[in-house]
Amino acid sequence: MRVAYNEQMTGLADMLGEMAGLAGTAMEVATQSLLQADLSLAEQVISDHDKITELSVACEERAFALLALQAPVAGDLRSVVSGIQIVADIDRMGALALHVAKIARRRHPNHVLPEEVNGYFAEMGRLAVTLGAGAKEVLETRDPERAAQLREEDDAMDDLHRHLFSVLMDREWKHGVAAAVDVTLLGRFYERFADHAVEVARRVIFLVTGKMPVDPDETTEIES
Amino acid sequence: MRVAYNEQMTGLADMLGEMAGLAGTAMEVATQSLLQADLSLAEQVISDHDKITELSVACEERAFALLALQAPVAGDLRSVVSGIQIVADIDRMGALALHVAKIARRRHPNHVLPEEVNGYFAEMGRLAVTLGAGAKEVLETRDPERAAQLREEDDAMDDLHRHLFSVLMDREWKHGVAAAVDVTLLGRFYERFADHAVEVARRVIFLVTGKMPVDPDETTEIES
Repeated sequence: MRVAYNEQMTGLADMLGEMAGLAGTAMEVATQSLLQADLSLAEQVISDHDKITELSVACEERAFALLALQAPVAGDLRSVVSGIQIVADIDRMGALALHVAKIARRRHPNHVLPEEVNGYFAEMGRLAVTLGAGAKEVLETRDPERAAQLREEDDAMDDLHRHLFSVLMDREWKHGVAAAVDVTLLGRFYERFADHAVEVARRVIFLVTGKMPVDPDETTEIES
Repeated sequence: MRVAYNEQMTGLADMLGEMAGLAGTAMEVATQSLLQADLSLAEQVISDHDKITELSVACEERAFALLALQAPVAGDLRSVVSGIQIVADIDRMGALALHVAKIARRRHPNHVLPEEVNGYFAEMGRLAVTLGAGAKEVLETRDPERAAQLREEDDAMDDLHRHLFSVLMDREWKHGVAAAVDVTLLGRFYERFADHAVEVARRVIFLVTGKMPVDPDETTEIES
């Protein structure tokens, strides 16, 4: 019984880590599809999304079964409750990658992005991948110091997002309103992806230290 | 013990309903601040946001205490687990209302919205308030039929959102890129507010019937 219980607890942590890995990969491939106007990469993200949804359901079921059958206490109970909350964040990370891929697909064979902002999205994509990998690592190691580093990577994402808005708001923007609308939504998707990764890290910090850091989205101000 | 337990279960449901009510009010006032360029209404939403955050923390603590001290089973366990998930959705509804109010504050004394799209936001605001009230009602009554109706109100929100995008994408849009960026973000905030209300309803339907309807955001396609 104890062995099965420990296996189930570890299994939940492993599934959450795997989900974070898939969400990171989805954003990586979605970013490539966006930058290269590559339809097959966009389609790959869209069809692979089911795996994230399935894992999300499996995590919720595992967490519920643990509560129902094992009635964990103390640290284990906090792990399961945090797990239920973390699933929702990683699920959103996957959905945001899906949205990026769908915009790339909708505009194909055209490029979504004016060349002027490609560099921003290449860098936002790189940060998103780092944050996805960081969330996975934090879920696996439960290292609160690594978790706190994710906040710095999110600050870098917020800086890029602000710069992107200043490019959009510049009177010299020559690419029209339709491109501006796409860039606005895409910028928001990357920024929210980063926020959810930080939220995962916050939950892990709370789990380990009992203290909850500030919500990332509530400190975000778009200077536009 | 049993009486205290029942009171704690009811207390959790009441706090969730109260939170949904506050999120609905926040979006109502935020919409007024947006349409009237009214700084004091925007400030009211921003300062009242703490109440939603406090209730969110109180709900999480109550749910955790119930699990730790009462080890609920069967239907009660499902209620508590759903409660933990629902808190996160209502918390986001409050954050989205806060974002609307912050955009209104940032542009004050100017109006954020070109007059051409005021009607869309008046109607999206009305739907958001209806959805907030609906989520509150569903949390209190656990009526799966009322919960299913929220989906229809969300469909109306998605329709408005699509129309708004067609206005933005029209070559006749005369209000420049900066206004288009604000309108794009605001449209997304209202649409996500509605999605979270539907998500609350989905959780309640699952709780009562054991069946989970489809995620609202994953069926959303912006025709832009």
